[in-house]
Amino acid sequence: MPPFDLIAALRAPARDAPASGIVDIMNYGRSRDGVMGLWAGEGDLSTPAFIVEAAAKALAAGETFYTWQRGLPPLREALARYHQAQFGRPFSAEEFFITGSGMQAIQIALAMTAPAGSEVIIPTPAWPNAAAAAGIAGARPVELPMHFGNKGWTLDMDQLAAAITSRTKVLVLVSPSNPTGWSATLSELKEILSLARRHSLWIVADETYSRFWYAEGPRAPSFYDLMTPDDRIVFVNTFSKNWAMTGWRMGWIAAHPSLGQVVENLIQYSTSGVAQFMQRAGIVALENGEDFVRQQVARARKSRDIACDILGRTGRCRFAVPQGAFYLFFSVDGESDTFALARRLVDEAQAGLAPGTAFGAGGENFLRLCFARDPGQIEEICGRIARVLAA
Amino acid sequence: MPPFDLIAALRAPARDAPASGIVDIMNYGRSRDGVMGLWAGEGDLSTPAFIVEAAAKALAAGETFYTWQRGLPPLREALARYHQAQFGRPFSAEEFFITGSGMQAIQIALAMTAPAGSEVIIPTPAWPNAAAAAGIAGARPVELPMHFGNKGWTLDMDQLAAAITSRTKVLVLVSPSNPTGWSATLSELKEILSLARRHSLWIVADETYSRFWYAEGPRAPSFYDLMTPDDRIVFVNTFSKNWAMTGWRMGWIAAHPSLGQVVENLIQYSTSGVAQFMQRAGIVALENGEDFVRQQVARARKSRDIACDILGRTGRCRFAVPQGAFYLFFSVDGESDTFALARRLVDEAQAGLAPGTAFGAGGENFLRLCFARDPGQIEEICGRIARVLAA
Repeated sequence: MPPFDLIAALRAPARDAPASGIVDIMNYGRSRDGVMGLWAGEGDLSTPAFIVEAAAKALAAGETFYTWQRGLPPLREALARYHQAQFGRPFSAEEFFITGSGMQAIQIALAMTAPAGSEVIIPTPAWPNAAAAAGIAGARPVELPMHFGNKGWTLDMDQLAAAITSRTKVLVLVSPSNPTGWSATLSELKEILSLARRHSLWIVADETYSRFWYAEGPRAPSFYDLMTPDDRIVFVNTFSKNWAMTGWRMGWIAAHPSLGQVVENLIQYSTSGVAQFMQRAGIVALENGEDFVRQQVARARKSRDIACDILGRTGRCRFAVPQGAFYLFFSVDGESDTFALARRLVDEAQAGLAPGTAFGAGGENFLRLCFARDPGQIEEICGRIARVLAA
Repeated sequence: MPPFDLIAALRAPARDAPASGIVDIMNYGRSRDGVMGLWAGEGDLSTPAFIVEAAAKALAAGETFYTWQRGLPPLREALARYHQAQFGRPFSAEEFFITGSGMQAIQIALAMTAPAGSEVIIPTPAWPNAAAAAGIAGARPVELPMHFGNKGWTLDMDQLAAAITSRTKVLVLVSPSNPTGWSATLSELKEILSLARRHSLWIVADETYSRFWYAEGPRAPSFYDLMTPDDRIVFVNTFSKNWAMTGWRMGWIAAHPSLGQVVENLIQYSTSGVAQFMQRAGIVALENGEDFVRQQVARARKSRDIACDILGRTGRCRFAVPQGAFYLFFSVDGESDTFALARRLVDEAQAGLAPGTAFGAGGENFLRLCFARDPGQIEEICGRIARVLAA
């Protein structure tokens, strides 16, 4: 602490925002040689050349000026066509808004829906950033621990209903889930929606991982399969995972067009839009990226199967085979301090995993391994982990 | 209004955020052919090739992954060297944080310093976005109208002192000012700082335009010329103007290193950092961009002189010759409806100017003309404006 205390003079919700629970282990691991980092939510592939080239071309053409706050019209139109292909019905470009990352989409969605002092229900384990963003906005994140048992992860609808108070305004649902891979079924989505309707709650629907889907059908079930236009749902999504664009910081909000001016204002007064030359790359990703998405998902499925097989055969690892997303979230019998275990795996298996403590209530005994990698690498690293756990 | 009212269900500070007051006239003007748009705060030059090439090179090299939340270490070091060159004393890389635009720097600075329900004093006329961001954060922006008279624009220190209440937590100072071109003298900065110290206020110091400086010395006076490390000052700045990078959305915060973790968290939970390949361009801008900055400033000075000369000779325009920034903010005798006048100038002079109503109390009778353009173009367009005003 410095001799003068600037921190004490800060706005409390900002001062009290928690540091990311993943960074500690990353810092620990970065100081070791040869560690394979599977702690972050990104794959090993850089953005495909055809996408990169679209940005480079726009840059060279001088597209370096201010642009539309809501996003380039052709990108919004491309998103409408992409959604039409995914959900089999027409969408309007007016429903889509380009944001400076999926994270910003979440931040804006919460700034729109969660008043100061209100409660935001978030089933956990969950990627911690939505809860933190709610806290910074002055709302109170309320964790609702899911259950892990013989049927894998389950969301108890009675507990969800019981968690709703007069202060509850928003329910954040990440499906498929980061980190558990759990995905709501269509009938679960229906129950959640009917609960939200009954209590006039907003739903912030994070469908980032809907394409990384290993069960039946081409994608995970979605609120789009059920909703009517007057439902209070704000969708948040990102270019990061489908098109290997994590570092670009480009995402989108999908919401009723009547909310357009409010979304535009919130973009205007936060980042004032996304670089045009990046958005050109987004158009190409949506229009020509299907083969790449399919290859990535097939590769992730193979890696998932390998990871589940090797860690399953240790006899010490407990997990639900993930139906979606690209994480294996597993506990290890006899190991309750997962941060200590994560450090041991860095030291002895050169494996960088995220401790479950980063993901809120219910995740404390788990580790998260990102398997969006070459199946050969996943085989090697899971073998190393298995040997450490057998020792 | 749709049959169901989603807007009524929104968080009030988001719902009530004002639309930008510049967009209306831009929409009006875009529908006309041949209008030269001087309404926005950007010049006519696209980003120089040597900067663009650094981004393209990083993209081609696969720098498309997540990166440091606080910014790339070499960019933070380049900012420290840049500040050392500007202010003649050493700076540490730990004082600098890369944000997704200067606007985001302001948003984060206010999220750090302005509690919900607190008051944020903003001398006006001013670029309206800081006030809007304060409102979205749940604080109350308090406009403090500056005075326009024979001495140009003046900030009355007694009125500033009188505007401070027990709820005041932050003072936002944009110097040089957008839109007036007014810049605080060193002795005014000293008075403001001593007022802030006496009342334990934070200062959010927007020094975006400090290089666009037409009076004595190489740059505008700065709080850096006066402050001690324990002063509660958060600096916000941007790559947009100096290096013609408006469309990139890249800025920075400069603050005491003890605030680093809080700034990192606020970045993590809003946009989670800025694209690496953009930051590479930022390094090159800082390291090799001085000639470009000097050329731009010299060009702006010429354009300023031409605009002041032509509009001054109409005998109807009142303005203070701007000491800094790149706007001419002028009123026209006998014209009180500046939005109507702005429309007339679009129609009759093909000149796109921003109405002063967009800039808060004290600016209502003015128009803002951005002169960061080729002097020949400014001569032509000011000639057209003068002819309309003479008619």
